Amino acid sequence: MASNNFERYKETVDSRIKELLDLAEPGRTIGKAMRYSMTAGGKRLRPILNIMANSLFDGDTAETLDIACAIEMIHTYSLIHDDLPAMDDDELRRGNPTCHVVFGEGIAVLAGDAFLNYAFETMLANAERFPDNMLRHIKAMSIIARAAGIFGMIGGQCSDLEAVDGDPDTHLLDYIHEHKTGAMIVGSLLSGAVLCNPGQTEMDHLKRYGECIGKAFQIIDDILDIQGDPALLGKTTGKDADDNKLTFPKLYGISDSYKMASDLTEEAVECLDIFGTKATDFAELAEKILNRKK
Amino acid sequence: MASNNFERYKETVDSRIKELLDLAEPGRTIGKAMRYSMTAGGKRLRPILNIMANSLFDGDTAETLDIACAIEMIHTYSLIHDDLPAMDDDELRRGNPTCHVVFGEGIAVLAGDAFLNYAFETMLANAERFPDNMLRHIKAMSIIARAAGIFGMIGGQCSDLEAVDGDPDTHLLDYIHEHKTGAMIVGSLLSGAVLCNPGQTEMDHLKRYGECIGKAFQIIDDILDIQGDPALLGKTTGKDADDNKLTFPKLYGISDSYKMASDLTEEAVECLDIFGTKATDFAELAEKILNRKK
Repeated sequence: MASNNFERYKETVDSRIKELLDLAEPGRTIGKAMRYSMTAGGKRLRPILNIMANSLFDGDTAETLDIACAIEMIHTYSLIHDDLPAMDDDELRRGNPTCHVVFGEGIAVLAGDAFLNYAFETMLANAERFPDNMLRHIKAMSIIARAAGIFGMIGGQCSDLEAVDGDPDTHLLDYIHEHKTGAMIVGSLLSGAVLCNPGQTEMDHLKRYGECIGKAFQIIDDILDIQGDPALLGKTTGKDADDNKLTFPKLYGISDSYKMASDLTEEAVECLDIFGTKATDFAELAEKILNRKK
Repeated sequence: MASNNFERYKETVDSRIKELLDLAEPGRTIGKAMRYSMTAGGKRLRPILNIMANSLFDGDTAETLDIACAIEMIHTYSLIHDDLPAMDDDELRRGNPTCHVVFGEGIAVLAGDAFLNYAFETMLANAERFPDNMLRHIKAMSIIARAAGIFGMIGGQCSDLEAVDGDPDTHLLDYIHEHKTGAMIVGSLLSGAVLCNPGQTEMDHLKRYGECIGKAFQIIDDILDIQGDPALLGKTTGKDADDNKLTFPKLYGISDSYKMASDLTEEAVECLDIFGTKATDFAELAEKILNRKK
């Protein structure tokens, strides 16, 4: 039953993303590059979290759906730019050639820019449709903007880029992943919740849940880069080691890294206590993240 | 007297930009790259237009100032990304080495991303400070987002990138410049005005004024690339011809191009009639754009 919710939310998101892409210059190169990267088979984890958090407080999915899609646009832009030769230099993503391989580097830079910008266009147009809840929409957009920017994802990506040849440093590793991956996962949850104006305790528990699954997600990502199946992952493995990247297995070994992810999953589930049976989906999702093979 | 207004607005903008940069991770590489590109001596044309349009309808500059600064952030991000090797490949901007020359391409991509994102962070935080005018703030942000995105600046930049080796085409040239330069100039004006809820006729006149000065600005830009003084301009000239770029002088010759800019300036000034003496600054600015040497 809960699993069906994930699939149902994913279908809702995919269907709305298709509509939003159809409005985004589909006949021009920029629109084609955007569509190419967006429809390459993402898990839609972040938008699903956004809708789940909104539903947890009895929100109407129709009100947060465009915010959920905007979050996926921001995620997609970050992948397009991360894959650039000047960044991680990846030629394969989700089993397909990356955006710059297909469209060239210039268009890939612009397609990333376009998604970040279109995310805000989409959320702002959505906010205008809910005049009675405008302050909450501004707060939701603020949460996402902060999570995506220099105090969140971009800050983490910048440190990641600089850390490639650096010394092993557990604080730096935590900083990178809390910001690069964790911030947007937490932001996805809180922006969905804030539309319903929940109490501070509820927001705090949801935040800690997000921090735990965000870090577990990244640890598993690092482990899959060593032990995962490239065919299932749709990307080259072993890249972190080749690039001398700072990762959890590099600092702690695979076994201890997995233990950390497992402990974090347990803590994430404990954070859900105050929500009772309404949060069953969240517990199931935390387990899925721990046990994922792709 | 009017000239002093430009200088006064520029100082107000520069001072607030400095505050916003001080809040933007100044000790980290990303913050340093942002500061480097933002303080390299821009004219602040777009934020000045934003404040002027707000003042034209008796707005309070304090309410639009952060929007004005955000517009300059978006402009700066577009320059950082335009200068990248995969785009225009420029090594000099306003007399200084470009961002990627100093900080590397990866950081330059991120610094551009960071400015686009920080622009929305800044505007959203500002909107929260004006709860009585929230819908107008959402409209102002929407105008800017649309002007900056695929239906505006990014759309124009994408066509510009693709047109480099294309056939001379007057429609394409108009499309590129209306979008790449014009859209954000118009957006700067309309976003400043919309906070004061002016009538549609006033908005239409301001829009046409913006379209005219935007196109004149670009024509003069193209002419300066041929006849300008590199020392005054702070950048290499002759690049458009070297890159086989589609420009106004290439299609119409220098003399006819200047005549077009001059006619557009005249039309811009005529658009101001309905505003009477309150719009003296706008007329003066149109003339400055026509006669600029840098």
